[in-house]
Amino acid sequence: MTVLQILKRRRSVARFEPEGLLLTREMLEELIGDACLAPSDFNLQPWRFVVVRDRERKEILYDCAYKQEKVRQASAVIIVCGDAFGDRRAAEEAAEAVQTGALDQAQATQLVEAIHRSYEGNDVARFAMAVRDPAFAAMSLMLLATERGIGTTPIGRFDDKALRRAFAIPDRYFPVMLVAMGLPALDAPVPPRGRRLPPSEVVFHEGMGGAEP
Amino acid sequence: MTVLQILKRRRSVARFEPEGLLLTREMLEELIGDACLAPSDFNLQPWRFVVVRDRERKEILYDCAYKQEKVRQASAVIIVCGDAFGDRRAAEEAAEAVQTGALDQAQATQLVEAIHRSYEGNDVARFAMAVRDPAFAAMSLMLLATERGIGTTPIGRFDDKALRRAFAIPDRYFPVMLVAMGLPALDAPVPPRGRRLPPSEVVFHEGMGGAEP
Repeated sequence: MTVLQILKRRRSVARFEPEGLLLTREMLEELIGDACLAPSDFNLQPWRFVVVRDRERKEILYDCAYKQEKVRQASAVIIVCGDAFGDRRAAEEAAEAVQTGALDQAQATQLVEAIHRSYEGNDVARFAMAVRDPAFAAMSLMLLATERGIGTTPIGRFDDKALRRAFAIPDRYFPVMLVAMGLPALDAPVPPRGRRLPPSEVVFHEGMGGAEP
Repeated sequence: MTVLQILKRRRSVARFEPEGLLLTREMLEELIGDACLAPSDFNLQPWRFVVVRDRERKEILYDCAYKQEKVRQASAVIIVCGDAFGDRRAAEEAAEAVQTGALDQAQATQLVEAIHRSYEGNDVARFAMAVRDPAFAAMSLMLLATERGIGTTPIGRFDDKALRRAFAIPDRYFPVMLVAMGLPALDAPVPPRGRRLPPSEVVFHEGMGGAEP
């Protein structure tokens, strides 16, 4: 199926058949690995994924997510995190590029400088990176899962503090969202797609003059 | 082609053939419309897109983006913005759901309250929504373009203030990134894909204990 067909097929699953699919550790690592083909700033890959499959751990996650049933119904829930200090990998990334012949030493030095210039003292850029790049991977993950017949739902509502504590997420990582995965409830109809705003409300040409302030 | 094949085919284009493709206003609106099939928190669709096709406007955008050549070489550049006040659409979205029969009146009232609870006084959630959801749409846009043979490159480095001024972007919108689109330079080889971190470095199971602090 084409990307467009998969985009059309994807729905945010409201209810899962409780643990209705067996999603193995290996399958999930493969799906996440493929999702990481998404691009990231300077290829810093500031994304981390916590796979939650264990029933007791899902109960804890369910509490962190304001008791949304789909969290414990899902076969697996992925906590998608962003690394707000992705730029710490700058030197490693540059050395890699030299090794593969993609950059020479002078270019690698420039790359490291450009990365530091982009993020040092710029908390907004840092936070944007730590949300945007993991979101690219999460969107890819949802499409890859849809293509394999796995239902998904993105979840943005959870108690950040409780989640960090329960899942030992260090300060440098930002929990961006959860992706619940599993078999959509068999007795639930395919939910209608929420209406999308028409292009006239979201697309502007050459400038944003006239946008709602 | 499958989503995986498209993910593998996508590369961040380093150089475009200067204005090498004719990307019409209609084509771009259609692509963006399809990309908006991506999910968003409460279907608030906090994304806006500024399509830049005009040569003089691209020159200005090039200046805002620290003179990255690909900005003015591209046939079109999309400024992807997030709406930090997407929750202002809560009532509208709830009314829509009542009209289509998806929710009854009591549920609609609960929805509006849930939306307000999620964002009011929570600037982090607000900002995360305004980056994450537009990033879902941007990732979808890059995949849809790749499938149609259009080269893309995501650009995260630009002068936020200069961009806002030049493109009349009101305070409530956050410029998340640029997506440059066009024909990859004909004399440039397909760039090698940057190495991806192995699953052992980005995937954790049941908790993040052991992650680099």
